[in-house]
Amino acid sequence: MKVFIPGIDGYLGWPLALYLTSRGHEVQGADNMMRRAMVEQLGSHSAIPITEWEERRATFFEKFNRDIIRWHIDLKDFIPIYEALRAFKPDAIVHLGEIPSAPYSMIGPDEAAMTQVNNIIGSLNILYAMKEACPDAHLVKLGTMGEYGTPNMDIPEGYFEIEYRGRKDTLPFPRQPGSWYHLTKVHDTYNIMFACKVWELCSTDIMQGPVFGTRIDEMGDDARVATRLDFDECFGTVINRYCCEAVIGHPLTPFGQGHQTRGYIPLRDSMQCMTIAVENPPKKGEYRTFNQFEGIFDVTELAQRVKNAGKEIGLDIEVRNLENPRLELERHYYNPDRKNLVDLGYKPSITIEDELKIMLTDLLKHKDRILEKKEYLIPEIRWSGLHKRVGYLNHREQNT
Amino acid sequence: MKVFIPGIDGYLGWPLALYLTSRGHEVQGADNMMRRAMVEQLGSHSAIPITEWEERRATFFEKFNRDIIRWHIDLKDFIPIYEALRAFKPDAIVHLGEIPSAPYSMIGPDEAAMTQVNNIIGSLNILYAMKEACPDAHLVKLGTMGEYGTPNMDIPEGYFEIEYRGRKDTLPFPRQPGSWYHLTKVHDTYNIMFACKVWELCSTDIMQGPVFGTRIDEMGDDARVATRLDFDECFGTVINRYCCEAVIGHPLTPFGQGHQTRGYIPLRDSMQCMTIAVENPPKKGEYRTFNQFEGIFDVTELAQRVKNAGKEIGLDIEVRNLENPRLELERHYYNPDRKNLVDLGYKPSITIEDELKIMLTDLLKHKDRILEKKEYLIPEIRWSGLHKRVGYLNHREQNT
Repeated sequence: MKVFIPGIDGYLGWPLALYLTSRGHEVQGADNMMRRAMVEQLGSHSAIPITEWEERRATFFEKFNRDIIRWHIDLKDFIPIYEALRAFKPDAIVHLGEIPSAPYSMIGPDEAAMTQVNNIIGSLNILYAMKEACPDAHLVKLGTMGEYGTPNMDIPEGYFEIEYRGRKDTLPFPRQPGSWYHLTKVHDTYNIMFACKVWELCSTDIMQGPVFGTRIDEMGDDARVATRLDFDECFGTVINRYCCEAVIGHPLTPFGQGHQTRGYIPLRDSMQCMTIAVENPPKKGEYRTFNQFEGIFDVTELAQRVKNAGKEIGLDIEVRNLENPRLELERHYYNPDRKNLVDLGYKPSITIEDELKIMLTDLLKHKDRILEKKEYLIPEIRWSGLHKRVGYLNHREQNT
Repeated sequence: MKVFIPGIDGYLGWPLALYLTSRGHEVQGADNMMRRAMVEQLGSHSAIPITEWEERRATFFEKFNRDIIRWHIDLKDFIPIYEALRAFKPDAIVHLGEIPSAPYSMIGPDEAAMTQVNNIIGSLNILYAMKEACPDAHLVKLGTMGEYGTPNMDIPEGYFEIEYRGRKDTLPFPRQPGSWYHLTKVHDTYNIMFACKVWELCSTDIMQGPVFGTRIDEMGDDARVATRLDFDECFGTVINRYCCEAVIGHPLTPFGQGHQTRGYIPLRDSMQCMTIAVENPPKKGEYRTFNQFEGIFDVTELAQRVKNAGKEIGLDIEVRNLENPRLELERHYYNPDRKNLVDLGYKPSITIEDELKIMLTDLLKHKDRILEKKEYLIPEIRWSGLHKRVGYLNHREQNT
């Protein structure tokens, strides 16, 4: 199949290009290299060094004897994305080209507006470009489990059948997102739902839990095709940040009381799931939702798992909770469904313990790069807008 | 109270300034005169002539011995709206400064993006500006009943308590909007809900049905303070368009089979309701929803009412259904709640029949202006994107 990946240079986009290509799919993508620029602008860098695009491309050619085309496109511009889709005529578009940072979106009005415009208009332009250039293509869109928030009930996959005052209907499950960024994903969801209804486009909207991992098998040991791994407060996801903390002897830093519970997924299984979506498209006009995660943990338990995995490879790791810079429930019910992907054959390919050991081993090689930017491990951006670096909580040490 | 009205030059904004001022409130507003420019750009004009802002302002001074300040602001820019709120320190902001056109948003990708950015970022900037300049002010935000779509069950006001798989929670009622424009209102809703939660702002989010009417009593017979009345396919609401059709002897044009059912509200009662919201603010941090409409009718019944009112003043009116340019259910259940405003004292002040007679009488004076642009009465913009003027349906005439 022909697969177009907006965001092909990113943490998920680049491994997905390798993963799909190694399975025989033909891949092109788009990227304006914004993620690289944003992390640099914040003053941080990827824990794992990544090569420039031209070297990625050359290595890709070496491995697959095939060129990988990246369209240098700002998705806020309609014409270029339309032209790329018209030229390539993809069967599927896996849209990973959004700003994925909740903290960044909470910095101030400019960052909030920038995140909302970038994500909403980027997706809107892809929908219009599909309508005009490839109306039968399948849009695989990356949303987030964070769209649902933490309601006091089970979370179905996108829709639920309910009875209210004696009448029944199947309706979109209510969303309760927790940042301007998470809101963009909800806005996308509604926009995509509408485009499928009005123009008979088809889409799989993936509600993905936070991803963790340093590699996929398709990379082998070739450092030239490594993917980025951010650990700064804006672009680092929680397990990736814990692992970076672990290898430099920094305490792991769960936020608040540490009982926020989410579903997580290793990088390799994120690739597996997106590929399942691509290879099993919905019907014309169908909008479907996949909840995509593997294990459900609270952040304290996650820290404990990292600590244990570290011990096995000789790391002595401390855990110290931080004041929570976010506004979120710290104790809550959490039981999301995850049936659609399992029905299509998804099987977890690794235990969290094994993945953590691989990650810690990979990251130990880049300890110096993490140490060099270790101040970025402690968050400064607060949901209240009163930004300053957060401090450790005292409730665990009992020493004040 | 001090009330700030973004969109103060518009169909609702201008009468609201008169209405609130005549009740002793102090009003300022913002407008970049975009609505005037957009209607002109489309080639149409208001059926009722309106004066330039400077004449409105002078007349306002004559009537109330008070200046009315309009900040010339594009709400997409944060700094100016922040500065206006910081200078005025309003108790309430009644946000009417959005592009209100579903058909306009469906023209193509540029118009869709323009509508979404304008509305979403405008509201987002107001929220941030409130947080920084007047965190205790009350945001009265105009949404639309169209946010809910037409679910097969009662529509509560914003939230509903439900049980799902044996657990209960109170959650936002699912939204099913029907155009890129309606989607902006849903996106606003979620953004505002979040701002109230995270920053303890307070807001009344008004889900308003289509407004109709040519005047409010506070205008008296002074043509210099008249408000606009659009009848083109983009900015004309259904009853206003029917009345314009009626006075020029054009058939009334319900879309499709004509059983789409909505709740409507006269201009004067829209003013009454918004004022009730302003004068009865919610608690700090509270986000509440008012469903704001009066009578519920299907569009065929509406046409019949206009026909009857016309007959009483000597107009002979025909009804001819048009192909529906929209994608919407033409037969559906519709039973929205309307309790919050009634509990606060809202009482309808006029029957639809009396309002229609006033409207037809007012519009008859401007028959020539409507005739001059009568081609704008037949819609061209189609939800499918395949734009051309729609034709009459044959099912009623049985003559093909």
